[in-house]
Amino acid sequence: MRQGDHQGRPYYAVIMAGGIGSRLWPLSRQHRPKQALSLVGERTMFQLAVDRLRPLFPPEQILVVTGQDHANVLREQVPELPDDNFILEPVGRGTAPAVGLAAIHLRRRDPEAVMAVLTADHYIHDAARFRAVLTAAYQVALEGHLVTLGITPSYAATGFGYIRQGQRLDEYNGFTAYQVESFVEKPDRATAEGFLKSGRTSWNSGMFIWRVDRILEEFARQMPQFYQQLERVEAALGEPRAAAVLERVWPRVASQTIDYGIMEGAQDVAVLPVDIGWSDVGSWAALLDILSEDAAGNVVRGRHLGIDTQRTLIFGADRLVATIGLRDMIIVDTDDAILICPAERAQDVKKIVDKLQESGEGYL
Amino acid sequence: MRQGDHQGRPYYAVIMAGGIGSRLWPLSRQHRPKQALSLVGERTMFQLAVDRLRPLFPPEQILVVTGQDHANVLREQVPELPDDNFILEPVGRGTAPAVGLAAIHLRRRDPEAVMAVLTADHYIHDAARFRAVLTAAYQVALEGHLVTLGITPSYAATGFGYIRQGQRLDEYNGFTAYQVESFVEKPDRATAEGFLKSGRTSWNSGMFIWRVDRILEEFARQMPQFYQQLERVEAALGEPRAAAVLERVWPRVASQTIDYGIMEGAQDVAVLPVDIGWSDVGSWAALLDILSEDAAGNVVRGRHLGIDTQRTLIFGADRLVATIGLRDMIIVDTDDAILICPAERAQDVKKIVDKLQESGEGYL
Repeated sequence: MRQGDHQGRPYYAVIMAGGIGSRLWPLSRQHRPKQALSLVGERTMFQLAVDRLRPLFPPEQILVVTGQDHANVLREQVPELPDDNFILEPVGRGTAPAVGLAAIHLRRRDPEAVMAVLTADHYIHDAARFRAVLTAAYQVALEGHLVTLGITPSYAATGFGYIRQGQRLDEYNGFTAYQVESFVEKPDRATAEGFLKSGRTSWNSGMFIWRVDRILEEFARQMPQFYQQLERVEAALGEPRAAAVLERVWPRVASQTIDYGIMEGAQDVAVLPVDIGWSDVGSWAALLDILSEDAAGNVVRGRHLGIDTQRTLIFGADRLVATIGLRDMIIVDTDDAILICPAERAQDVKKIVDKLQESGEGYL
Repeated sequence: MRQGDHQGRPYYAVIMAGGIGSRLWPLSRQHRPKQALSLVGERTMFQLAVDRLRPLFPPEQILVVTGQDHANVLREQVPELPDDNFILEPVGRGTAPAVGLAAIHLRRRDPEAVMAVLTADHYIHDAARFRAVLTAAYQVALEGHLVTLGITPSYAATGFGYIRQGQRLDEYNGFTAYQVESFVEKPDRATAEGFLKSGRTSWNSGMFIWRVDRILEEFARQMPQFYQQLERVEAALGEPRAAAVLERVWPRVASQTIDYGIMEGAQDVAVLPVDIGWSDVGSWAALLDILSEDAAGNVVRGRHLGIDTQRTLIFGADRLVATIGLRDMIIVDTDDAILICPAERAQDVKKIVDKLQESGEGYL
């Protein structure tokens, strides 16, 4: 199988790189979104997302959907990607419009294209296995299925959506594909524990693989008003007026997620359950979980002097961070703001960001 | 009673302003000692120490003993004090030599002088009552007693020395003086609770009032070797060689505290128990106790955004300090270092300073 050209249909990766990742404040900011941060090493999350695709996709077949305000910082981080492969939304309207926009760009390049919708800000420990399942997913998608990657759950998470698998379809590249029985929104603890025991549910990773013709068919059927807006944008692609049309249409597009807008009502959805060491890095606590730890279970970036400090994440900048008697804490120090909270409250960082938005005092 | 001249003997205040206050790191540093910090308001601890003496002592009769390295910052803070009233130690040798040095300076000015040995970095809530007890102490000292101010204990502290009172002496200016039965080093919890219940013990505040001739008599008797060194320094006072003699003698002086070196073995020691709202501000936790609190019991200096944060001291600089779910914590942010610890571990800040001294990496 040649890179990016599989059994006749070209295979494209589309990296969804919108969003800020505000639960990683104060490191994440509007001008410095989560995907542009170096969270798990020297390379940024976005660079890592491209790195792990490169053995499978040539740069010409890696597209990025992001906001106009983030385009420059992301382009600079991955100069090997062609400028034209950055698809810029004037405003973010959720994942459904972003996928639709990428799909019409691809249809214009090649109506035969298969597209993998991937994330820019998630952590994947086993990149080789990730590429293997992407290859399997391509084969499943060729048959017309809309494929979702299902992450084998490692605990009874209540913060993710779940995918219940139905009838077995077939083996592809060593992976078993199943029909999707249903998508389940974030469950309560007891339901999540039941899912974990069943062995027949996966986390919804937000990664999808499908033929461009198939997904646009679903847009036309399930989101007809949006599909008309898409067609207006598509008609202008490649013309001087393209940007102006997008600027006019996009603010009028209704916000929608791909899960609600398409997947839940889609026909012929398949899931490929896989264990690739995935984390959405959805909070500082998630980062504390995945990063390699020192003997005391701490995760330290920068200068730290600790006395009796355990299982604590210290993401420092230039300052010395001195701690005494801390357990399970999050400390994130930046030039103009510092966050201090217990790991179990890491989700509430969003509330800090909300308060800053209300007050208009900056730091965002 | 005229300011500074009471019943014929002149009354001098001697403020002991050596030391760093390293338990208040990272705000206190070698170049910015605790007494030079604004901890309880706009004025620094040293300025407050002088302010509360001014209704009782003219500037000419307020002396300061400090290290050569701190003289400039302290002089700038209290320009009303004459330059000559700063007595500079080449090296710190503990409180006994500092008191002795001040005493020979005063003997040269006036052998009749009475001196109050006071602190530069303690908090005294009731300054008027403090001055009243200093006036009483002067009267007790005139009779030849070595007077200590005893602080009425407000809880069973194990971090202070105690003074056990013996036979009642007399009333002075509305205060009752007692002979001192004994000085007790930092007691264990049970002993401290017994002291608190007895109503006959006070905290040793480190504030003393005595005639210069009496204290020098005690130095001659109890620390004869040091007294000879003092006489060498005294012989040179007022001559061009004075500084050189001090520089030569002082490094050879043995370190000693006034409590061990003089008070425990002194003759005719009296105590004046008093409640003046005193705190040694010996740690960040002590500051959390004495500072006025907001509704959540927090003490905040600088920009703070808190969610569910209570009884926490936040001493910020320019940065925004954002906290979630904290209780009884200490957060001190400075330009180059930040400290985070539970209030109950505030004494261990000293360990951080010790580690920094060992490693030689700065921040001191």
